[in-house]
Amino acid sequence: MDKFKTVLNIFQKQQATFSFGAVALLTAGGEQIFSTVVFRCPCSSMNFTYGNVFLTVPALVLLLLGYILSNKTWKLFTGACTNNSKVCRKEKLCSFIKVITQITLNAVVAPASWIAVALLNGSYYECAMTGFNSTSYKKQVCVGKSEVCLKDLHKLPCGKSSMSPSDSEDVLLIIRAQSQMLGWLVITSIAALALLLSCVARCRSPVSYLQLMFWRAYTKSENDLFESATNEHAKKLAERNLSSFFELKQPTPIVTPDKKAWEKVS
Amino acid sequence: MDKFKTVLNIFQKQQATFSFGAVALLTAGGEQIFSTVVFRCPCSSMNFTYGNVFLTVPALVLLLLGYILSNKTWKLFTGACTNNSKVCRKEKLCSFIKVITQITLNAVVAPASWIAVALLNGSYYECAMTGFNSTSYKKQVCVGKSEVCLKDLHKLPCGKSSMSPSDSEDVLLIIRAQSQMLGWLVITSIAALALLLSCVARCRSPVSYLQLMFWRAYTKSENDLFESATNEHAKKLAERNLSSFFELKQPTPIVTPDKKAWEKVS
Amino acid sequence: MDKFKTVLNIFQKQQATFSFGAVALLTAGGEQIFSTVVFRCPCSSMNFTYGNVFLTVPALVLLLLGYILSNKTWKLFTGACTNNSKVCRKEKLCSFIKVITQITLNAVVAPASWIAVALLNGSYYECAMTGFNSTSYKKQVCVGKSEVCLKDLHKLPCGKSSMSPSDSEDVLLIIRAQSQMLGWLVITSIAALALLLSCVARCRSPVSYLQLMFWRAYTKSENDLFESATNEHAKKLAERNLSSFFELKQPTPIVTPDKKAWEKVS
Repeated sequence: MDKFKTVLNIFQKQQATFSFGAVALLTAGGEQIFSTVVFRCPCSSMNFTYGNVFLTVPALVLLLLGYILSNKTWKLFTGACTNNSKVCRKEKLCSFIKVITQITLNAVVAPASWIAVALLNGSYYECAMTGFNSTSYKKQVCVGKSEVCLKDLHKLPCGKSSMSPSDSEDVLLIIRAQSQMLGWLVITSIAALALLLSCVARCRSPVSYLQLMFWRAYTKSENDLFESATNEHAKKLAERNLSSFFELKQPTPIVTPDKKAWEKVS
Repeated sequence: MDKFKTVLNIFQKQQATFSFGAVALLTAGGEQIFSTVVFRCPCSSMNFTYGNVFLTVPALVLLLLGYILSNKTWKLFTGACTNNSKVCRKEKLCSFIKVITQITLNAVVAPASWIAVALLNGSYYECAMTGFNSTSYKKQVCVGKSEVCLKDLHKLPCGKSSMSPSDSEDVLLIIRAQSQMLGWLVITSIAALALLLSCVARCRSPVSYLQLMFWRAYTKSENDLFESATNEHAKKLAERNLSSFFELKQPTPIVTPDKKAWEKVS
Repeated sequence: MDKFKTVLNIFQKQQATFSFGAVALLTAGGEQIFSTVVFRCPCSSMNFTYGNVFLTVPALVLLLLGYILSNKTWKLFTGACTNNSKVCRKEKLCSFIKVITQITLNAVVAPASWIAVALLNGSYYECAMTGFNSTSYKKQVCVGKSEVCLKDLHKLPCGKSSMSPSDSEDVLLIIRAQSQMLGWLVITSIAALALLLSCVARCRSPVSYLQLMFWRAYTKSENDLFESATNEHAKKLAERNLSSFFELKQPTPIVTPDKKAWEKVS
């Protein structure tokens, strides 16, 4: 039982890591399903657009979803328009940008893993690049092949070109290899960027590591308690109002913090 | 039940060893999956780049991940920039380098096992070296074979060369053997380096073995207790602040250690 | 239940033997996996190097791992450099060598069983010796066979030589028989050496058998008790320091043995 607790504890500490991993894994699984079930390269001049749509648009959707599902976004934006003082002052703007950056970094996990897995898988890139309308790229891919290659490149992903099967396989292998190398490049640069950004952010923090841990614990327990206290307070207020409505009595006064105080704690 | 405890105890003592082993095993499994599912040698002039990307880039990503997931990294960097005294003095710099080395040694387990398993497996190295553009290497591999070997070497991994199947198999076996010997060399040098480094580190330690064990136990229990104390303190503080917010009362003072004290214990 | 206890008791008494057996068995299993999955003889002039690498390098790695995982190694080395008196005196040097020998004997179990199993299996030795560049050895193996045997010996393990299948099988059987005889030789000499060394060590011991048993039991229970006492002391110390940190009080003094005392008990 004791050991079980230890495992749970470790899990809780690395919660962020695990949730990032889960998001990345789910995205990768979704990408696999999409690329086998939904994706079908048109093998025409639309190849380039079609492949790029499958490569980038789902990533964009995931990014928007990430913004929508983040609590911090709403904490930041609620009342920001009516309450001009919240954005206008310079120091506020600075912290505004800081919070936006934080939210973006959290929201970018899913789209980045979509693009990385899609590139490693290679089928979207394959479809897109066979329709890429650049003579120099076509020549580079078709080096050592017959003239047909330059003309029939966009028919390759469907296996309908008039080239010999061995030649067309060669060309597809080259494009897939490019896609995978690009995928690794994306993964490496994301990992490097993550390390760099957290290093800089931590390095510039005014407090030490243990104090930061303390503040994190404080914020977490404050949030939890605030939520339960809010619920309780709201329930009490609702009960009072209802009973005063049904029993036609004057409501007994309950102290509720005023609007200014709420804005201050937000 | 008593025996079970003993087993658990042994497990706990060798925790570091077991976690290293688990990391190495997971990496090896991942490498196997990648080399069979994702990896497809392009059999063109890109061979060398492609093989090397699969051999080294995942190792680099694993290294970066190792840095990101290490608690020690953040303990070291948090507040290091704003607090110049932490790095500037010479003795501090020395211990800074020491901690960095320690973190690197822990983070290097996964990448090293990736490279070792990839070399023992041989398919990445095979693809890379068949595209290696060095006449002397090609001649060494193709010794006793026909002239075609020098020209068609990069087509070997796909089985598309115009050489006889027996000859091409011979060449591939030689390259794979080189890869495996290189893999054993990597493993041996890592093991030797690990033994040497720990020997030197322990040998220079100012305290004896049993005292070191005592300090380790002390650090562990201090960390555990510190964490629970921090959480409790944070909860108390949050409760006080919230109740003062809802009940519109002045908060009762709670003593919290100041910033200097936090920096000192970090 | 009573019988179960007896079995457990026997198991505990012969713990060392059982753990040696487990290590040997695991090594043998690993060797089998390696020789079927990873090992592929290149059938070229590299045969000799390749076979010997697979025969000896894993054994070397296992030896290094044995040193790294041994507690005694670290008990010996911790603080040995800073504390010159630990090595310099002659009697100390003598006991130093004694402990090193003991650690080596424990660490040598896994590599020895690797080599023994590899030789009994025969495939590594077969590959190595078919590439052995010695005319007299080749003549000895090829006695009564055609001239081709001397030239095509390194192609035998892949079954690609131009000799008749029956002849090549004969040669391989001879080499495998040599390998297995060598393997039994290794096993016998290790067993004989183990018996001899323990005989000499016990014979020179100043105390009788029963007294030795007593000292062993004493050492074991001392270690166990020391460990639990250390953990408890560390916990008490940590609790005191933490409470003094959060409550901003002066710490109450706890007596901790000084460095000299620690060195003495180590």
